[in-house]
Amino acid sequence: MDAVDFKALWDELSPIGRTPDGGYLRYSWSEADQACRNWFRAQADHRGMEVETDRNSNLYAWWGQPHDGDAVLTGSHFDSVPHGGAYDGPLGIASAFLAIDALRASGATPRRPIGVVAFAEEEGGRFGVPCLGSRLMTGALDPDRARGLTDSHGITLAEAMEENAADPTILGADPERLAAIGAFVELHIEQGRVLEGQNAPVGVASAIWPHGRWRFTFTGEADHAGTTAFADRCDPMLTAAFMVLAARKEARIAGGLATVGRLEADPGAANVIPGAVRAWLDARAPEEAVLSQILDAVRSKVAERAERDRTRVLVETESETPVVDFDGGLRDRIAALLGGAPVLATGAGHDAGVLAAHVPAAMLFVRNRTGVSHAPAEEATDEDCAAGVEALATVLRELAC
Amino acid sequence: MDAVDFKALWDELSPIGRTPDGGYLRYSWSEADQACRNWFRAQADHRGMEVETDRNSNLYAWWGQPHDGDAVLTGSHFDSVPHGGAYDGPLGIASAFLAIDALRASGATPRRPIGVVAFAEEEGGRFGVPCLGSRLMTGALDPDRARGLTDSHGITLAEAMEENAADPTILGADPERLAAIGAFVELHIEQGRVLEGQNAPVGVASAIWPHGRWRFTFTGEADHAGTTAFADRCDPMLTAAFMVLAARKEARIAGGLATVGRLEADPGAANVIPGAVRAWLDARAPEEAVLSQILDAVRSKVAERAERDRTRVLVETESETPVVDFDGGLRDRIAALLGGAPVLATGAGHDAGVLAAHVPAAMLFVRNRTGVSHAPAEEATDEDCAAGVEALATVLRELAC
Repeated sequence: MDAVDFKALWDELSPIGRTPDGGYLRYSWSEADQACRNWFRAQADHRGMEVETDRNSNLYAWWGQPHDGDAVLTGSHFDSVPHGGAYDGPLGIASAFLAIDALRASGATPRRPIGVVAFAEEEGGRFGVPCLGSRLMTGALDPDRARGLTDSHGITLAEAMEENAADPTILGADPERLAAIGAFVELHIEQGRVLEGQNAPVGVASAIWPHGRWRFTFTGEADHAGTTAFADRCDPMLTAAFMVLAARKEARIAGGLATVGRLEADPGAANVIPGAVRAWLDARAPEEAVLSQILDAVRSKVAERAERDRTRVLVETESETPVVDFDGGLRDRIAALLGGAPVLATGAGHDAGVLAAHVPAAMLFVRNRTGVSHAPAEEATDEDCAAGVEALATVLRELAC
Repeated sequence: MDAVDFKALWDELSPIGRTPDGGYLRYSWSEADQACRNWFRAQADHRGMEVETDRNSNLYAWWGQPHDGDAVLTGSHFDSVPHGGAYDGPLGIASAFLAIDALRASGATPRRPIGVVAFAEEEGGRFGVPCLGSRLMTGALDPDRARGLTDSHGITLAEAMEENAADPTILGADPERLAAIGAFVELHIEQGRVLEGQNAPVGVASAIWPHGRWRFTFTGEADHAGTTAFADRCDPMLTAAFMVLAARKEARIAGGLATVGRLEADPGAANVIPGAVRAWLDARAPEEAVLSQILDAVRSKVAERAERDRTRVLVETESETPVVDFDGGLRDRIAALLGGAPVLATGAGHDAGVLAAHVPAAMLFVRNRTGVSHAPAEEATDEDCAAGVEALATVLRELAC
């Protein structure tokens, strides 16, 4: 296989949506998202690959006839968390095109169609539900609920799609498309330091921890911060603050993870006791029972505290994903192909995890020098990215040729 | 004195900036603010009063020659906290015009000029610094600092002024104007239930508690919520949550008030450990020593916690106001004039408190049926508002005629 020139392709893609702080704003159905999609179309054209968009705004480029069935699909997503890093998502798409180049350069001829995919709204950074495109496609998300999701400006998903000439009325499960996919392989930057510790540029995923996102709405009574006695207050900020600390404590005790990364006070003025506070709890654990234990404990402690604060608490599940054990046969085959690459579990959700319930799915991880994720400090070297491309090409050759 | 038709005037003013929930959005230099100012100009024209705007965007209407000195000024502010109530501010301005009507109807002829004033940005709801207009006029706020203040969209005060044809370069202390003011009387809705308990429609202010606003910036490291072990985290949301609870506790112990009504996480995504969290602490106390005690205790406890969380804490004073004891002679004279009206202290800051350091100043309070403030449930009856107008007319006659 010829040496992969990762940097040349990456230098075209990586400026899109980059902010002066080095972080990325690539919200779905934004200008940056459209620019990424145009880049995708240009890459496909350049390679003579047919482009299509499915009913859920997932974008495909095909080498071979897409609907012959038993396709080998690879790719990831363009969208970022706000001020996220460069690699989370786009690396999997850029690597897919480069892996196809490598296969072609080596004279390979696929028996099975190979598709490159960019899934829509994987991070949930704009509309709150992660893996939106793949969940819709697999029927895991109700299209009515999806259409009504709103972003922080109150714009619905349906409105955002219409503004971008996409038809929200056709959102929903796409069983024919799913049936035509024989396997899915997602390459992704690692979101931790396991490969760094094992001195390996590429690893293979074993499983995704069960995880979910819950929206807590704490309701009290808005009043003047300077004139309302404590005895007369129903201050939901207190209950929200308690939840932040309780979630950390209960997750630590149980051996899982809990994070509150988003918290909003209403009306949000310094001299007004909030009428309501919304806080999002992200929780993850190695096992589903542990995740339930964390959630139950947090709900129970928060309910007690709300009684003291004279506030009300509503907990809504925004997403909940059971454990994903990637196809064991595929995983072992890939690890062996890659000369005994490390096999590791991850706490992060991925489209590959959503698809794994329907088709054999696998993930490759590329070493992250800092281990940081969802932040600008995320970092992979060009050499490791090129190693990722070669590994992906090896896997595609094995599966499709 | 003829019966005051409060409702007719109020029905013109009160729809401006009202949202469907009954709360108000009257940010300074917004369309709603301009509409209020236009209403003010029309009221002045209707009464043959000269209108002028000072260098700090405070708006005046004059009965008599404004610069003869020894003027009696009355009024309040138009701007609201986000989703605040109808009366906080505008009641004092509407009542001022109606009190002038009442004086004129009774044939009174002022010896001293009477001015109606609408001070700019009293709530600090847009740019964060309360009593902005009066602080600038009295030299209590540096004009360079004021020009650089930003709203939640990153627009500076200077830019907002320029968009509204106001000149930010002339902001600053206005000693000549201040010297021409002989007394200031601000009528305001009560922000508590004291008058309701004493069955009195109108009261007189004794003092304003010392109070201030401090911005806490907690800095950590943004990272992935699903893949970063607790041991590797520097999560500033934890330190911020701790501050919320510590402030409540320390204020309760000391006998003051503390509130966190505004809290912002950056980047503010559910699946990202925040890199930074900003939280605003509003604290008040009956005495300055008690306020200091609360602040010192919160800073010290938070510093300890930040060490455990491996975060950094920056505390910046946005505003700090010493105790205001209103002019005792004026207060007693007014209370006697009003037939022994109740005299009460308040925890809320006001432009009258800023002016009190320079001119004899007084405040009248109108009964609030709910006691709620800075929220739509704030409520004064038309009868109580009319009683407020009559009381204000009585005070203006005593001072100016």
